[in-house]
Amino acid sequence: MVLGIDPGYGRTGYAAVSFDGSRYTMHRSGLIETDPRHSFAERLALLYDRCVAAAEGIKPASAAVERLFFSVNVKTAIDVAQARGVILLALAQAKIPVFEYTPSEVKSSVTGSGRAGKAAVMKMLTIMMPDFAPGQDDIADAAAVAVTHAHRQYMNERMKR
Amino acid sequence: MVLGIDPGYGRTGYAAVSFDGSRYTMHRSGLIETDPRHSFAERLALLYDRCVAAAEGIKPASAAVERLFFSVNVKTAIDVAQARGVILLALAQAKIPVFEYTPSEVKSSVTGSGRAGKAAVMKMLTIMMPDFAPGQDDIADAAAVAVTHAHRQYMNERMKR
Repeated sequence: MVLGIDPGYGRTGYAAVSFDGSRYTMHRSGLIETDPRHSFAERLALLYDRCVAAAEGIKPASAAVERLFFSVNVKTAIDVAQARGVILLALAQAKIPVFEYTPSEVKSSVTGSGRAGKAAVMKMLTIMMPDFAPGQDDIADAAAVAVTHAHRQYMNERMKR
Repeated sequence: MVLGIDPGYGRTGYAAVSFDGSRYTMHRSGLIETDPRHSFAERLALLYDRCVAAAEGIKPASAAVERLFFSVNVKTAIDVAQARGVILLALAQAKIPVFEYTPSEVKSSVTGSGRAGKAAVMKMLTIMMPDFAPGQDDIADAAAVAVTHAHRQYMNERMKR
């Protein structure tokens, strides 16, 4: 089971996905939301607690998180990176190895094209996983990076045989 | 007592400073170093543990951390932001309020000029605090932001009277 995470300080999506070589299954997913009326540090503390709880509940063999790139909004990028640090901490403390993928690696793995749009990714996820309910962007991004790692890991294990 | 912190994933400096209206005192300072041979997530976990221990040992009334700005090296900036998130988490969990200052606010508070260089800041710190041993950049930056907040806080309390 791979825990995919789409980090954010306001909304963090997560999705637990497995791949048996022919079929992807989404076992659980969720959205961690923090209240903008709280201080940024308090929001990080809530995010941390919810990540610890998700990791304990799901007990994934590994986690997959998208690499951060800088967007136009630098303030947002710094805050997302700060939230991402807290998520990596929660995973490290739970001894869950973390794997990182670039956005284009994720798009390429899910749709076959590194330049696919959000709609194409969402469509492929609904085709690949009957348990996936489209609509929630943060959960879709988490599911996409989880699918990417579940597939990569399966291929790596096959290669070793 | 104010705990000033200069965040980094490789080296984080901290310094505990108080101000009685005429004199600054540096009570304790330290450097948290993480091993580059460990994974980034493991380094965040060590940083977190050491921050929790520093906060428990010092029991500051508040903490001061420099605001992050983007440097030329985007990769470094993301990693510093991730480390900073872990530090803010440790402070929030210890219920220590965090105050943020821009680099120019810090320079201005310590030297009188927002565009002062590192050498000028270091020199002023050695004049202001007999307990301050110059040389260690990360501790100097932590002491400078602690001085900034200790002074600001003292002035705010005076104003209220």
